Amino acid sequence: MSLLEERIQQIGAPDADAYEAARERLRNQARPAGCLGILEDVGARLSGIFGVMDVHLARKVVITCAGDHGICAEGVSLFPQEVTPQMVYNFINGGASINVLAKHAGAAVRVADIGVNHDFEPALPIFHKKVRRGTGNFAIEPAMTRDEARKSVEAGIEIVDELVRESPLHLLGTGDMGIGNTTPSTAIIAAYSGLSVSELTGRGTGVDDEGLRRKISAIERGLALHKPDPRDPLGVLAAVGGLEIGGLAGLVIGAAAHGVPVVCDGFIATAGALIACELAPKAKAYLFASHNSVEIGHAFMLKHLGLQPLLHLEFRLGEGTGAALAMELMDASTRILADIRTFEEVAIQDAQA
Amino acid sequence: MSLLEERIQQIGAPDADAYEAARERLRNQARPAGCLGILEDVGARLSGIFGVMDVHLARKVVITCAGDHGICAEGVSLFPQEVTPQMVYNFINGGASINVLAKHAGAAVRVADIGVNHDFEPALPIFHKKVRRGTGNFAIEPAMTRDEARKSVEAGIEIVDELVRESPLHLLGTGDMGIGNTTPSTAIIAAYSGLSVSELTGRGTGVDDEGLRRKISAIERGLALHKPDPRDPLGVLAAVGGLEIGGLAGLVIGAAAHGVPVVCDGFIATAGALIACELAPKAKAYLFASHNSVEIGHAFMLKHLGLQPLLHLEFRLGEGTGAALAMELMDASTRILADIRTFEEVAIQDAQA
Repeated sequence: MSLLEERIQQIGAPDADAYEAARERLRNQARPAGCLGILEDVGARLSGIFGVMDVHLARKVVITCAGDHGICAEGVSLFPQEVTPQMVYNFINGGASINVLAKHAGAAVRVADIGVNHDFEPALPIFHKKVRRGTGNFAIEPAMTRDEARKSVEAGIEIVDELVRESPLHLLGTGDMGIGNTTPSTAIIAAYSGLSVSELTGRGTGVDDEGLRRKISAIERGLALHKPDPRDPLGVLAAVGGLEIGGLAGLVIGAAAHGVPVVCDGFIATAGALIACELAPKAKAYLFASHNSVEIGHAFMLKHLGLQPLLHLEFRLGEGTGAALAMELMDASTRILADIRTFEEVAIQDAQA
Repeated sequence: MSLLEERIQQIGAPDADAYEAARERLRNQARPAGCLGILEDVGARLSGIFGVMDVHLARKVVITCAGDHGICAEGVSLFPQEVTPQMVYNFINGGASINVLAKHAGAAVRVADIGVNHDFEPALPIFHKKVRRGTGNFAIEPAMTRDEARKSVEAGIEIVDELVRESPLHLLGTGDMGIGNTTPSTAIIAAYSGLSVSELTGRGTGVDDEGLRRKISAIERGLALHKPDPRDPLGVLAAVGGLEIGGLAGLVIGAAAHGVPVVCDGFIATAGALIACELAPKAKAYLFASHNSVEIGHAFMLKHLGLQPLLHLEFRLGEGTGAALAMELMDASTRILADIRTFEEVAIQDAQA
């Protein structure tokens, strides 16, 4: 059995008793029932995942998966592919957006090369998991082979294995870096939603009307050429996906297999999560959505996954920035659950006063 | 000149040069322009308020203003008025929702009695600013006199004066506690929006259909009886408002006068902020909206104030809980502005490497 199938089989269900006990505690807290909205649900789910009432998300890590995209030859992005490795170096130097927001959230940032079109020095402190140097241009050829698609997912799984071996991991965030990667992500949600490409396609980092037309055309040609079958997630990934998107899928499967909650960032990370949950539906119980990207297709992905995003900040960056900020709200949800007193605890306090 | 007029006159404009410099830095950061959405605007506004690029919101305080409501006699709330003082004690004992969320945000919580129908011991560590023991039932009489309305606003102003005298204050959060207080808040937004009461009225802490009908009827009778003039904010507050709502208005005016940013919580705190900005339109430059409450009228208030809320978590508690969580995002916005490197800084870093 391959690593992928092994980890899929390992995914268990969260602790239903712990979840119900958390729900019961939330109902009994000295406040109107349900008044802390979405965070009550998040807290109860985390309680189910860890099997305890008082969850502490002590070790939080954001993994930013990087890859390049042959589809850039179609003129779908404002930026040249060279920016992908430049940003990897920027992440390592600590001055990028994800560094700043992860630090604010008390999370570490680690970068993974799943398929950047650049050879990084072996000593560079990243996860060296390159499957190939960038995908093929999926408008005219498959993005990658089926074997490469599997390897990209397994790269994400291996990263979680390595993280967990280092020390206990309590929350994983997923983020992306890859010039052009809103294009494969849009192709993936088009394959799963059945909606028209023109309806689903957004402007990514800000292409103009002409760029948007090129992007729509490239995706339409790719889908017509490969006819990806939504019942075959690895096939979809191979046909129109991305190497870092495969890595992002693997992170979700790996986290779920280790019983670690995972919060996905925006459009690209959610495309990875979608592939993950198609491969391993049980992974959904460990998955949280951080924010609602301005990319049009993102709302369709979240609906497909049945996830309600925590933040609506009009972010459209990636890197894991939304996931990092959402970690703070997930932290808050654990405090809401464990620390707000129940009516009974308030009465005991009053009797002692 | 009274304290209210004095503080209104003291409100200055934020530093336009610092604001523009912040906008410029945000545009030059090594990421697609505008991709960090709402938080870019928040960071730039804070920069304008403090007149520096690198803002540190070191001292954050949430003030929870408490008051009671004669309108409860109309059966508009699920809870009896006695819960208001009970919750004040719960805040002091540290086990309430606002204590937990403020602690998470690194903020202090202070409670202010502006008009609770209970005599607190003088030694209780709260701001003792009681104007009267609860409002009158505004369905049949004015909630308070015009003089009491002014005193309630001045109570909020005095609290900010006292906080600022203690030590420099960098961010003020406003929250409320008062059984029945969604009813006066709805009456206030009805007076300002001109929309029908039935369209604006929500279920507060969760009244049933019969309770909702009683609430709508009470507000409609109050508005018909007093005909509050929206051009006279103190008159609106006196006719159909609340003592803690006056206090919440005063907090906004006081913060603005001292050049301190202020983030208002949900429906009731925003009603106070609305009265504040009607009295002192310049205060709006210091005001931030924390979240979008599920109370129907809240969206109309935010639109009236021209504010975009930071969080959409389906909260409907009050106490300052949404304001506390939003403080974390405001903190993040200051780090985004100051710490994400510009293209120029990245190039310098690369040259040094």
